[in-house]
Parts: sequence; structure tokens; C-alpha cells
Amino acid sequence: MTRIDRIMKAMEEQGLSQMLVADPVSVFYMTGIQVDPGERFYGMLLKKSGEHVLFLNRLFTIPEGTGFEKVWYSDTDPVMDYVKEHVDASEVLGVDKDLKARFLLPLMEGKETNKFVNASRAVDLTRGIKDTEEQEKMRAASAINDQAMERLYGLVKEGTTEKEIADQLLGIYQELGAEDFSFQPIVSFGANAADPHHMPDDTVLRLGDAVLFDVGCVRNQYCSDMTRTFYYGEASEKNREIYELVRRANEAAIAKIKPGVPLCELDRTARAIITEAGYGENFNHRLGHFIGLSEHEFGDVSLANDRAAEPGMIFSIEPGIYLAGETGVRIEDLVLVTEEGAEVLNLYPKTLKIIDEK
Amino acid sequence: MTRIDRIMKAMEEQGLSQMLVADPVSVFYMTGIQVDPGERFYGMLLKKSGEHVLFLNRLFTIPEGTGFEKVWYSDTDPVMDYVKEHVDASEVLGVDKDLKARFLLPLMEGKETNKFVNASRAVDLTRGIKDTEEQEKMRAASAINDQAMERLYGLVKEGTTEKEIADQLLGIYQELGAEDFSFQPIVSFGANAADPHHMPDDTVLRLGDAVLFDVGCVRNQYCSDMTRTFYYGEASEKNREIYELVRRANEAAIAKIKPGVPLCELDRTARAIITEAGYGENFNHRLGHFIGLSEHEFGDVSLANDRAAEPGMIFSIEPGIYLAGETGVRIEDLVLVTEEGAEVLNLYPKTLKIIDEK
Repeated sequence: MTRIDRIMKAMEEQGLSQMLVADPVSVFYMTGIQVDPGERFYGMLLKKSGEHVLFLNRLFTIPEGTGFEKVWYSDTDPVMDYVKEHVDASEVLGVDKDLKARFLLPLMEGKETNKFVNASRAVDLTRGIKDTEEQEKMRAASAINDQAMERLYGLVKEGTTEKEIADQLLGIYQELGAEDFSFQPIVSFGANAADPHHMPDDTVLRLGDAVLFDVGCVRNQYCSDMTRTFYYGEASEKNREIYELVRRANEAAIAKIKPGVPLCELDRTARAIITEAGYGENFNHRLGHFIGLSEHEFGDVSLANDRAAEPGMIFSIEPGIYLAGETGVRIEDLVLVTEEGAEVLNLYPKTLKIIDEK
Repeated sequence: MTRIDRIMKAMEEQGLSQMLVADPVSVFYMTGIQVDPGERFYGMLLKKSGEHVLFLNRLFTIPEGTGFEKVWYSDTDPVMDYVKEHVDASEVLGVDKDLKARFLLPLMEGKETNKFVNASRAVDLTRGIKDTEEQEKMRAASAINDQAMERLYGLVKEGTTEKEIADQLLGIYQELGAEDFSFQPIVSFGANAADPHHMPDDTVLRLGDAVLFDVGCVRNQYCSDMTRTFYYGEASEKNREIYELVRRANEAAIAKIKPGVPLCELDRTARAIITEAGYGENFNHRLGHFIGLSEHEFGDVSLANDRAAEPGMIFSIEPGIYLAGETGVRIEDLVLVTEEGAEVLNLYPKTLKIIDEK
């Protein structure tokens, strides 16, 4: 089955005969056509009849012979009226979860609210199961990330700042064959590691600091994402204690992965280890997220998600412990659910590493 | 008047007593609080009573003492229910133009469609008139862009590729005191210049090529954006002809700017010059866009916008001529509307420049 066929089948299961997909990444997933629409409307109307329609601004450049019906519009055209003309007003319209109010509200004008549903699951569940080609691309992106992590490790030295290291990463990725970051890299020293989303700044490395790298690249459209935490020169007892807890939490969750296991069970497994040691409140986020063409895709590994693991799913496993004003640790791998269990896409070691003073 | 007061006044003019602002840049504009929410919900509910409420995920880190009522939620909480509790269900709710369907549809559930309106104009019109502090920051960002353009000019030499030049720009900006790109830089050689959104690739420079740079940086949160087109070694008669047309179109539009002039008149002025010379169809986009905290802000300079210019507006003037498969030219400046006319924020020269062969 083609990707679009799989999505149409998922729509049918939701009782939907039509859907407007506006996430450019999802449109790429379905069509292979890559467009960065910026603030302009770009979307694919999927129809049960198979007469799908792609809406494009005249400014977008696409390859010839893509084989879908296309409606081109200019900046001064009422594009949502064009979409309306193609929608069957008597049927419910599924819309993309990310469709913006400025496009959605005009479509809804004068209609009943219940004629519109967020139908992204049809696309997202399909995208959530990676096909063989996608799995290969995900492996390649993570292999580069493993190599990049070793290069980052080698850059850590006395007097350096977070920003100095972060600024070198894009070049490293490109040398290794990646195109871009999959997200802005996180480089955190010492107490900054207590903020899961800390942005690299001019903080200077000090002896005994945690050195946290949460980084990822894009290679052939697919994303990698890995976190490792090292220590500079020495690691305090407290740092060693929380590091080992987080490493055990990471490994215990991964060990549980196989088809049929509810994703919440993975979160619970990791969280239990951290909570029993008294740090439950210091692990203040979900265990993981799905990833693929986007760095964060639909689907998470959290207590709230009782979906069962299925072969082809790829998600992160990233437990952490954050001690505000003091230190933090997070260890993250991407894993692919296989028929038998899990393939860990990141091979970079997880044993505690002390970076030699230099 | 504070920025929030100006927005509340604009809401009142639209007959609105409440509005949900979800664009993180607009929330920053109002509060000075900077959050990158990713896929998570982040928003400010503005209320006529002045009891505004900020909705924040527990993962977001914000400074203390910001003085707004805050509702914190976790990844597993039904945050849109919390928002609903604070909305007055008997009144129309204004929403952000970029509010996503996954947040908007739950808010609308069981309600009448007409209880929701895209009210972004209240925020956007306010953001569209830059205050003194913002004007100063916009000047500073464009001054860096002028310097960066001269550096780019100096990098053009035989055998170089678009990507090799583009890859050096972030470093140049950072040396000059900027933080980041305001958008991915466009570097186009020869026929690639015919695609207004061409992404830098491995195209090698050739004698006689157009060399188009459309680049911008962010400095202190504010964006710059400028385009210049040069020629390598020599410029054909055709290139010279279309260059001079575009330069005249740019300068004629700028000369028209003063308070009270409809923005469509600026587009018409530039377009007339290009159309009269027979290239009307080769100028296939609007003349300009507003810019500030975001690279593309609400408001454009196009035939469809009959709004009058007002002091404090900052927008681009960027006519172009694109000859598919052959060559292209675009010349873009940012301009600030003043009490008397216009202040051009880009000082980089616009006379035709031939880059010496080297």
C-alpha cells in the first residue's frame, strides 16, 4: 500500500471521506513534493474518490509531473474559497491538527462546528509506523549523531563556553554528511543542565560540571536526537548517584520494549526507578516522543499514552533528573520497535564518562 | 500606553472583550517573556477586566516576578479545559490567526462557530506600528545586514558555490553582533536567481552570472532583510536592462512613501515600471511585507492592501524580475515610515556592481 492508501484507510476507520492536510511535512510524506510555504497556505485535500487536490501558491516551485490535481493561487487570491469549492459541504471535513485559525475559521464560516474534526491521527498514526526506507534513513541520521557526539566530547576543555561548542556543531554535522540541525542544540554546563531546554550561552566550563549535550541532525529529511551527559574532571557523589539512576531508567525502559507493550508502561518503568530513589519530582517531563521527518512527531511515551508498541515505531527514551541551581542529567536514545523487541539506533556508550581536565 | 493597552484598545474597536493570543512572539511583545513552546500550548488570554491569564507548560522556564496571573499545566493535563474555564462563554472569543486546530477545535466544541473570530488584527496592527525602542533595534539589525552584504560581496570568486558562501554567513553575522539568521539565506547564481525562493546548493559560479543575496539577521530579537543582486565578471545587456528596471521600481516606490499613501499605491508604482517594459508577468509576487520581531509580519505591500502608510510602519520594498532558466534580479530594502516620508534602513548601494573576476 502507498502511504496515501494507508492514510485513506485510517481516515475510513474514523468514518471520514475527506481531509485537509496542511502540515508541509505530511504533504511531503505523501507526495515527495517539498515546499516551505512560510505564512502562505499549502495543503492537500484527500478525497475518498481518489481525486486528491493540492493547493499551491504560484511562488512555490515544484518538480514537473507529480501527478496530482493542482489548484494554483496568487497572493491576492481568496485561496480558502478555492478550498471550500472542493470540499463536500454535506460531509464532515477532517483537518490537520496544525491548521491555523486564519485558514480554518474561513472554512467553518456559516457551518456547524461539528462538521469539522481534528483528523490528524489518520496521518500521524501512519507516519508513526516507519516503512523500511524510512527506517534506513533514521539509522543513517542516528549514526551521524553518534559520531558527532564523540566530536563534541573531544571539544570539551577548560575555559570553553557552551556557545563556543554549540557553534561548531553545524559544521561537524555537515562534514559528517548531514544537512542541518533537527533542532537547536542544547549544550549545558553545571547548573544549566537542570533546565531541560537550556539554550547555550556564555557559561564557562568549571571543574566537576555536568556537561549535557542534547543534539540532533537532519539527513535525507530524517531526524536524529540523542542526549549524553558527561562530567568535567570529576563527578561528585550526587552526580554519580543521579547519573546511574537515569542510566538504569533508560536501560530498563528500553529492555521492556516489544510489540504489544503499552507505551505508558515504558514511562512507568523508568519513572519508578527514579521515584523510588526519591527524585520523582525532579523528572518533570514525559519519557519520550516520536520522531521521523519531524523532530517531534505525534505520539509520546508518557503515562497518558496507553497505545501499544508496534513494529516500525521510532521514539526517544530520555529520562532525566534535574536539581535546580545545582546539576542535571538526561540520557536519551532513539529506538525502533522490531518484531522481537527494540533496535537502539544510538550506539554511543552510556557508561559514566569523566572528561579529562585539559 | 503600554503595548497591551494599545492591543486592548484595538480589541475594543473590534467589539471584543476577550482574546487568546498564542503566537509566542506576540506574547513576548506584550510581556517580555520569551518561551519557545514547540508543539506545546502557550498562550495569553487578554480580558477587558485587565485580569489577563498566561498559560504555561511546567517545562517552560520564565523569569520570576513577571506580574501576570499564571496557569501552569503538565504534559498530561487537559490544558484547553483550563483555558475554557477562564473564557467567558457568553462573549465572542478573539483568537490568534496562528492558533492551531488542535487547540482551537476543543475550545469550539459544542459552541456556535460565530462565537469565535480571528482577531489577530488587534495584535498585528499594534505590532505593525513600531515604537521608538523597536525602531532603534530595527536600525541596528539592518546596519549589521549592510556590513554583512559587503562581506558576502567579498567572498564571490571563481569556482565558489552558493552553499560555500551561504555557509559562512552565520559566522559573519555573529562576528558583527547578531544572534542568528532571521531566515535561511538565499544565495542564487545565474538561472537560480529566477527562483525567488531558491535554496543555496552546489551550483558553481560562472562568468556573467547574476549573484543574488537575500539575507537577514536577528539582533536583539529584531529582524533585518535585504536583497542585492550583483554580476560576476560581466553583465549582459539583458541583465543590465532588468537590473535598472528593478532598481528604478525600488526607488520609485520608496520615493512615494509618506503617511497617508495607500500601500497598494507603492506596489502599483513599482509594478507599473516593470510592466511597461514588458516584464509584468516576471514580477510574480507582492512588493513587500511587514517585518519586526518576525521576519514576515502581518501586513503586506501589495495591490490587495489599501491601508494607508502610518509613521512607525516598517516594511520591505522588494521588486524583482525573474526569467525562468535564464536569470533574475531583486533589490530589497527595509523602510521606516516617518512623519515626513521614509527612512531607508539599508544603506548598502543599489547601483549596478560588477564583481571583478578573481
